[in-house]
Amino acid sequence: MKQEEKGITIKKEENMSEWYEQICLKSDLVEFSTVKGCMVIKPSGYSIWEKIKEHFEKTINKPLKVKNAYFPIFIPESFFHKEAEHAKGFSPEVAWIDKELTGKGERLAIRPTSETIIYDSYSRWIQSYRDLPLKINQWCNVVRWETKATKLFLRSREFLWQEGHNVYETNEECEKETIEIIKRYAKLTETLLAIPVLVGKKSEKEKFAGATHTYTIESFMPDGKALQCGTSHNLGQGFGKAFKISFLGKDEKKHTPFQNSWGLSTRLIGGLVMTHSDDKGLVLPPKVAENKVVIIPLFFKGKEKPVLEKAKEIKKQLKSFNPILDDSEEYSPGYKYSEHELKGIPMRIEIGPRDLENNSVMIKTRIGKEKISLPIKNLKKEIPKILNNMQKEMFENAKQRMQSQITNVSTLEEFKKAINNKKLIRMNWCGETSCEENIKDKTGATTRCTLLKKEKASGNCPICNKKAKEVMYFSKSY
Amino acid sequence: MKQEEKGITIKKEENMSEWYEQICLKSDLVEFSTVKGCMVIKPSGYSIWEKIKEHFEKTINKPLKVKNAYFPIFIPESFFHKEAEHAKGFSPEVAWIDKELTGKGERLAIRPTSETIIYDSYSRWIQSYRDLPLKINQWCNVVRWETKATKLFLRSREFLWQEGHNVYETNEECEKETIEIIKRYAKLTETLLAIPVLVGKKSEKEKFAGATHTYTIESFMPDGKALQCGTSHNLGQGFGKAFKISFLGKDEKKHTPFQNSWGLSTRLIGGLVMTHSDDKGLVLPPKVAENKVVIIPLFFKGKEKPVLEKAKEIKKQLKSFNPILDDSEEYSPGYKYSEHELKGIPMRIEIGPRDLENNSVMIKTRIGKEKISLPIKNLKKEIPKILNNMQKEMFENAKQRMQSQITNVSTLEEFKKAINNKKLIRMNWCGETSCEENIKDKTGATTRCTLLKKEKASGNCPICNKKAKEVMYFSKSY
Repeated sequence: MKQEEKGITIKKEENMSEWYEQICLKSDLVEFSTVKGCMVIKPSGYSIWEKIKEHFEKTINKPLKVKNAYFPIFIPESFFHKEAEHAKGFSPEVAWIDKELTGKGERLAIRPTSETIIYDSYSRWIQSYRDLPLKINQWCNVVRWETKATKLFLRSREFLWQEGHNVYETNEECEKETIEIIKRYAKLTETLLAIPVLVGKKSEKEKFAGATHTYTIESFMPDGKALQCGTSHNLGQGFGKAFKISFLGKDEKKHTPFQNSWGLSTRLIGGLVMTHSDDKGLVLPPKVAENKVVIIPLFFKGKEKPVLEKAKEIKKQLKSFNPILDDSEEYSPGYKYSEHELKGIPMRIEIGPRDLENNSVMIKTRIGKEKISLPIKNLKKEIPKILNNMQKEMFENAKQRMQSQITNVSTLEEFKKAINNKKLIRMNWCGETSCEENIKDKTGATTRCTLLKKEKASGNCPICNKKAKEVMYFSKSY
Repeated sequence: MKQEEKGITIKKEENMSEWYEQICLKSDLVEFSTVKGCMVIKPSGYSIWEKIKEHFEKTINKPLKVKNAYFPIFIPESFFHKEAEHAKGFSPEVAWIDKELTGKGERLAIRPTSETIIYDSYSRWIQSYRDLPLKINQWCNVVRWETKATKLFLRSREFLWQEGHNVYETNEECEKETIEIIKRYAKLTETLLAIPVLVGKKSEKEKFAGATHTYTIESFMPDGKALQCGTSHNLGQGFGKAFKISFLGKDEKKHTPFQNSWGLSTRLIGGLVMTHSDDKGLVLPPKVAENKVVIIPLFFKGKEKPVLEKAKEIKKQLKSFNPILDDSEEYSPGYKYSEHELKGIPMRIEIGPRDLENNSVMIKTRIGKEKISLPIKNLKKEIPKILNNMQKEMFENAKQRMQSQITNVSTLEEFKKAINNKKLIRMNWCGETSCEENIKDKTGATTRCTLLKKEKASGNCPICNKKAKEVMYFSKSY
């Protein structure tokens, strides 16, 4: 394959959708499956998911004492109908098993989410206040039979996620941890993936089917669309009642417990790609990069051997960064630079005969404009600093960009104009679903969230002219 | 729930099948799902799976340079038919998606195994010898619509596994690594789970559908049934040809590569339970136990406080063993002993007022007959030794038991008698499928494997009287 074919041929600014697809495919994260609407997550993409998992186990499972378990992929049809709102929310996209298998028995769905099958188990597991809180998480695949056009990582018929399902004695505990979890999601997204997010609450219309309310982390993409990156739902007692979950309290009376559920998925990888990557290819924050460094020896005739030896020595020295040594002789250094830039390796180390003489190397980060020279003996000490700074810079850049996109509007005209200009809209709002629907019809934008750090509303809702009750963020979304 | 109901009420020797089910359920590893034929893997059971994964990543992925990825759960019907033997082998147990979803399109199966969907991708990924070897593994759920009675962990309609799929330039490389992997499976099973296995080769009849030959690790349960614990299939070029996988060799000609696939599953947990557990409950080898130690303070009126404080101090000191401190005041020490024995905690530490005076504790392992007294200051040093010895002892016990079950037979009458006596049969065999089928009809036993460490055959096959070609192991199986 020639360089022209391998590189990204569309600019991010010109057509973000096509650019995005090229980045995903050409940087080798993922491919379209022959099965319509499904994707194959290739090793480079999957390693990002593993990094997310690892971080998650450390910052959520362990401190919050959540344990992992595994529940069946099949859900009996009657389970869906037990919680009416939930059934309504999910039925259009449920995939069912062929009736021949279940015969006269009940239809079985493939899980689009597991509240119902898990709470069926919980109704047996929970008997007494001693069994609470119960905190369980599962890593699994889920299937939602999308009929809209699918998009790599962002909307596919099967994806991977984690879903946490906690049960508490009191509403206070439940609400407190529902919020704690969304905050930890925000921290994961911001510190590991360097994606800035708004942390907030969904509107009544946009909340999870079956929840009393939903918290969300929303990131905002350069093309003016929001990406919901994770949600934490306070389910109240609705599922508890529907699934007859009850516990004998300290007061020796029966009570229905309070529950939440919370999830994030492989769509985060899509957010990562869109937020940071550029016209040369993928850009990975160092913390999620499997290989943080690539070493490229510059071969000059007759001087290959000492350069290659030094490169190997450096590779050994930098083992903890899991470096790639690209010592193939078939490709030019320039070709190799492009190749590793396309794949998003955070740092490149070049070493040629002259560097060798000076006991130094040239270094370039994936986002840096210039190469810098560094003594070989300082590499182990300096690289972590450089990578840390890169991680911070990527987050700061993305945050500035997102903040520059936030626009206050106070008329429908301003609203429409802002949407056309790819803005994230901040608006004093009445809080009524009818108004939200009206906006969606006229502009294609939906409510994203009100901030968890409450912002005081003022004036009237520009749509219906009623008194504003909250400050809501609106935009188009993935 | 009362103690009587919680404990195991059936003896292992009397009815192993019911005993097994009680152990699995009462030790809290797993439960029957409301969905027929499916199981819920509870946190205690899932943590064993996570330990297996962790060990696997360290001893297989890393040294063999295998990378993880994820392929779709759906497989188009036509893919199954590309490799004829494979299609025949799997079609009876495939679960299909409701036709309404796929409409006029092709029927979609839920993966019973992923060779076909993965090799469809490989046909695009592999172009040149530079792309080889390709070594990819996936951790996922698979569905096989069992019509026979299901059994917790051992046979269920959905289970979890890993499936590795490697591709090589030459048959030599392929065969070498197919064997290397079965050896590493054996090592994992023996060192982590303390389950002894025969490492060998399956007969033509029992090999994987689509393979040229299959290597297996077979463990042997106390009830006289073998449990296949993992398999590594040399697929030759069959799938490569069927899926049009080819690479341009160094000779600039097109070649079909050689492939293997290999997997182990959550049924290993079932093998673990059956091999080691006893009439008091689960017995876990220390290496797979999430909590390796339980500390039980013995409360005597007026002396509770210093004992509890010391128990807490010990808990902190032993953090690396992830100890449980059972300081509830509602239950007697005897009740607690039974409870933690039921759940298989490898080591119990008792501390009462008199121990406190002596600065010591009483220790009992789950398999030990006697309690021993140990100075508190030596705990951190001594516990790893005791647990290591326990791990070894469990393996040695299981190995002796298995070896004592191996019986040589030289007539069909001896064969039948041995099967009735729950033996693992070692027999000089002709190697013919017809003879194997004959034995199965008459005794219910199937071939397990011939050993990888070749045993020299002698005499004639007792069934057909033809000259024996190999030494085959036979038994009933799960």
